[in-house]
Amino acid sequence: MITFGGVFSVLPTPFDASGDFDPGSLQRVIDLFLAGGVNGFTALGVTGEVARLTEREREAVLDTVVTHTRGRVPVVAGTTTEGLRTCIEYTKRAKAAGASAVMISPPRMPKLNSEAVARHFAEVASAVDIPIIVQDYPPISGFAMEPALLARIAREVPSARTIKLEDPPTPLKTTRILAAAEGVEVRIFGGLGGVFLLEELLAGAAGAMTGFAFPEILVEIVTLFRAGRIDEAADAFYRSVALMRFEFQDGIGMAIRKEVLRRRGALAHAGIRPPGGVLDKTTLAALDRVMSWVEATRAHGSRT
Amino acid sequence: MITFGGVFSVLPTPFDASGDFDPGSLQRVIDLFLAGGVNGFTALGVTGEVARLTEREREAVLDTVVTHTRGRVPVVAGTTTEGLRTCIEYTKRAKAAGASAVMISPPRMPKLNSEAVARHFAEVASAVDIPIIVQDYPPISGFAMEPALLARIAREVPSARTIKLEDPPTPLKTTRILAAAEGVEVRIFGGLGGVFLLEELLAGAAGAMTGFAFPEILVEIVTLFRAGRIDEAADAFYRSVALMRFEFQDGIGMAIRKEVLRRRGALAHAGIRPPGGVLDKTTLAALDRVMSWVEATRAHGSRT
Amino acid sequence: MITFGGVFSVLPTPFDASGDFDPGSLQRVIDLFLAGGVNGFTALGVTGEVARLTEREREAVLDTVVTHTRGRVPVVAGTTTEGLRTCIEYTKRAKAAGASAVMISPPRMPKLNSEAVARHFAEVASAVDIPIIVQDYPPISGFAMEPALLARIAREVPSARTIKLEDPPTPLKTTRILAAAEGVEVRIFGGLGGVFLLEELLAGAAGAMTGFAFPEILVEIVTLFRAGRIDEAADAFYRSVALMRFEFQDGIGMAIRKEVLRRRGALAHAGIRPPGGVLDKTTLAALDRVMSWVEATRAHGSRT
Amino acid sequence: MITFGGVFSVLPTPFDASGDFDPGSLQRVIDLFLAGGVNGFTALGVTGEVARLTEREREAVLDTVVTHTRGRVPVVAGTTTEGLRTCIEYTKRAKAAGASAVMISPPRMPKLNSEAVARHFAEVASAVDIPIIVQDYPPISGFAMEPALLARIAREVPSARTIKLEDPPTPLKTTRILAAAEGVEVRIFGGLGGVFLLEELLAGAAGAMTGFAFPEILVEIVTLFRAGRIDEAADAFYRSVALMRFEFQDGIGMAIRKEVLRRRGALAHAGIRPPGGVLDKTTLAALDRVMSWVEATRAHGSRT
Repeated sequence: MITFGGVFSVLPTPFDASGDFDPGSLQRVIDLFLAGGVNGFTALGVTGEVARLTEREREAVLDTVVTHTRGRVPVVAGTTTEGLRTCIEYTKRAKAAGASAVMISPPRMPKLNSEAVARHFAEVASAVDIPIIVQDYPPISGFAMEPALLARIAREVPSARTIKLEDPPTPLKTTRILAAAEGVEVRIFGGLGGVFLLEELLAGAAGAMTGFAFPEILVEIVTLFRAGRIDEAADAFYRSVALMRFEFQDGIGMAIRKEVLRRRGALAHAGIRPPGGVLDKTTLAALDRVMSWVEATRAHGSRT
Repeated sequence: MITFGGVFSVLPTPFDASGDFDPGSLQRVIDLFLAGGVNGFTALGVTGEVARLTEREREAVLDTVVTHTRGRVPVVAGTTTEGLRTCIEYTKRAKAAGASAVMISPPRMPKLNSEAVARHFAEVASAVDIPIIVQDYPPISGFAMEPALLARIAREVPSARTIKLEDPPTPLKTTRILAAAEGVEVRIFGGLGGVFLLEELLAGAAGAMTGFAFPEILVEIVTLFRAGRIDEAADAFYRSVALMRFEFQDGIGMAIRKEVLRRRGALAHAGIRPPGGVLDKTTLAALDRVMSWVEATRAHGSRT
Repeated sequence: MITFGGVFSVLPTPFDASGDFDPGSLQRVIDLFLAGGVNGFTALGVTGEVARLTEREREAVLDTVVTHTRGRVPVVAGTTTEGLRTCIEYTKRAKAAGASAVMISPPRMPKLNSEAVARHFAEVASAVDIPIIVQDYPPISGFAMEPALLARIAREVPSARTIKLEDPPTPLKTTRILAAAEGVEVRIFGGLGGVFLLEELLAGAAGAMTGFAFPEILVEIVTLFRAGRIDEAADAFYRSVALMRFEFQDGIGMAIRKEVLRRRGALAHAGIRPPGGVLDKTTLAALDRVMSWVEATRAHGSRT
Repeated sequence: MITFGGVFSVLPTPFDASGDFDPGSLQRVIDLFLAGGVNGFTALGVTGEVARLTEREREAVLDTVVTHTRGRVPVVAGTTTEGLRTCIEYTKRAKAAGASAVMISPPRMPKLNSEAVARHFAEVASAVDIPIIVQDYPPISGFAMEPALLARIAREVPSARTIKLEDPPTPLKTTRILAAAEGVEVRIFGGLGGVFLLEELLAGAAGAMTGFAFPEILVEIVTLFRAGRIDEAADAFYRSVALMRFEFQDGIGMAIRKEVLRRRGALAHAGIRPPGGVLDKTTLAALDRVMSWVEATRAHGSRT
């Protein structure tokens, strides 16, 4: 089984000028990120605009990712749905399409409770033999999983012992989950655009799973950290977090990220599917500014 | 164009013992409800468990409804999605499948705003020529549409002048929407299981669009009301609302409704797709009790 | 120690024409409700508009209730706050003012968790020796307490074994809490305007704690039920629930309730403190109608 | 009338070891921040733990701030409440205590709407002659004010033309509010711990109103920016934002901020009132690290 850790890039879903899925751009993103040294990909995540795809498009996206990646790194597929049955079906399709793992949030539902969440993960796991990454992102799922629940899932569902943690404060919650799960090996990925990556690593996280458009920076940070070169990891992080923070703005984060990937030559078009934030001139100018600064500072800052 | 009003029954999606869609049961529900005198059907609504269907299942459900109804009453299809493009696509499919209208909620999204909601309806309307029923159900959509916004949509989008109103207090909001939309003919359906039907009618609603398992009661109330026999309509309503209230319980409403339809001989199985509330013995016994009382009272209550 | 059960009326806070607290009207409400046979009072609850009172006004309200009640029935005082320290202080003041018990919700706070909630109740209990009624009303507290948490509080905090349950479906949750707390005597009051009182009693509730403006109806239902005359209790309930439902409308419930109490001669003025729903003509007319019907039906319906 | 702009520090409420308000520590914070060049203070804000103070404590805090500040800079007092009447009363008290302005959020209430919010500000303004800062912080108020509503309030309520904007993406919303309010001079403060200060200034904000524990950094950024030295302002910002981001963590932000102020010698104790996040060792170590880095980088980073 895969040992999850390092940097898994959550892939965007690129669209062409008419709004259709653009596989060529996605392939270029994959190439760019592989060149940056990422350890895996996550397709069909929230920031992959999965909620705005048809099922056929979902399949086309996942096929593109699996095919173009050619097994060089594992591919995780998001299969969150509002019901157990569809979640199992999407998970089966993902496995059949070649995904190495799936990522699943609690099913969105009024009156959801801990018991039902634990059962959901257990039943998906018993129906499909594939590693499950438990996504903890309350603003989207509508349900906050307490550390005790995440630890319970890890104990009861051996295939669901990796967590993508996006319920701040993530460093503190990382510590609490690891304590609550004592005796079971849980692996935690930070998310949230990388904005707390250093502190998550200090708290015991295994890496980052996020869509930040410069994953090579995350790779550098994680690699230094794992090599025990904590000060250098921290320096690299602090020099870059101004950009991560800017990219990860509520409501327009995905639009900014795609614009960066367009500037990096990967995306032909930066559009996101409506409704969604559209970048104004001021935001674009502010993006120019922070990108230049981070680039200059990182160049200058390379330590000897 | 259809004039919307009267009683439109929101149809359940029946499943068999293995959890598969059960078209035969759905046909029996349609027959039962047509015999009860309903003026239309709504398929693929929230209580149709649409969020737990695959696209193929959505299509099968809508085909069953359209085919079995055979044009005797209009069929509305729910086509709410989180993105404009998929909403347009589902709306086109619904029209092609024979739906007379579609029902659409604001697209669920963090940071949604009034402007984006108005644009969403305008763009669906300009892409597909079909009447749109605007669903106002904040617990599911996550967005509360103020009367001014609903009136604005009605003014700007002529095909979207019917509202399924489920944001309590619905009678008061009905009054406010009608005032705000002055000069534009807006038609409002109550929902919420019928629990405020009388008061909604008194405030100017055109009828009810809900899934209450005894739509003939709703038909009786609306018919009396429209005939100007308000006291009789009120009497019929007050004698029945204990049951509507019981059926429309948060978290288990759909499970109760299906159980009632099973008892009425329409559904082969009462199950809803997990996760979801399961009825315990006490709830089942309480259901027996309220059903018997309403039946007896209605029989007894036929007035002089 | 008091055994909580029966009907505890949550008292409104009456205001005069200028918006000042009106103790005379509150005294008349107390007299009216005592004449109706209630078993206790709750002052300073959510529907007592406690969030819109100054501390001095809170004290005036509680003093009026305690003084005027003269020990004939116990008085519960709401002491919910957003912090532990103020909650303890308000609880001390309530005890000093003569309250027999306090009612406390989880402290409203982003990122609240089960652990912190359990600790909150434990610390209030250890600071003040007075029975605590745990209020479970998520729309106001912002936190849903699962049955396991309520059972844990009951086990760990002996003075906090009474629950005012307002998280629907309340009958089902009543069953679950009683099961989860097995071995500890937990007592559950229904709330929610009485709208599910019968079903809550069937599930094991000890009574109702709510502000319904005709508590004598609740008293009749609970008394019949406790006497084992379940059918009669149910009949009384079903004949009245149309009114409870109407009164308990989201957003304008308190305005309706005060209008009813004005009509009953208890309140000099029906106003609630702004901002808040104001009743329009249609709502007032609908109120006339449902009040008349319930009155007539109850008169007529008295069983032999 | 005051022209609001620059850096207004939101003051913490310090407590001593027993949890009592500690005026000496508050005075030291004021001295530290005045030495840092701030343009004003805001007392009794959300991060001043105002929700956990009694009225007497509120008064003690405000008196300490006004008295110790001695008019050197204006003092804004938070007077948000859930009702109009208490808001007016608190606003009167704040004015009498010497506050130069008040800060008010929409009153928290289910079913709140734009109309009621506009009326709330208008009525406070007509009752008390004092500048009002409109706080737009949806996670606490529970209500998102759209740009059109904020512009409407500015047009209709001349004393309420300053906004503390904390609804991300704040730079984009700043642009939209200024556009919507065209013709009326609206002034916007950023908040959110300073995490988007540069971008807010680029979008037209007048400054920052936040509690960041190093306000001298904010002062430097705003001063450079206003002097047209944008690149230097940006450089100063980017070098510091790693710390702002760390301090401004959901759920534990206030605990971190107080710990920093303790380390800076201002607070005798760093405790916040329970319930609330408590800092663990990992968070404290991460704080050491980011504080050292920012200090070193800022020292080193003085440009040539």
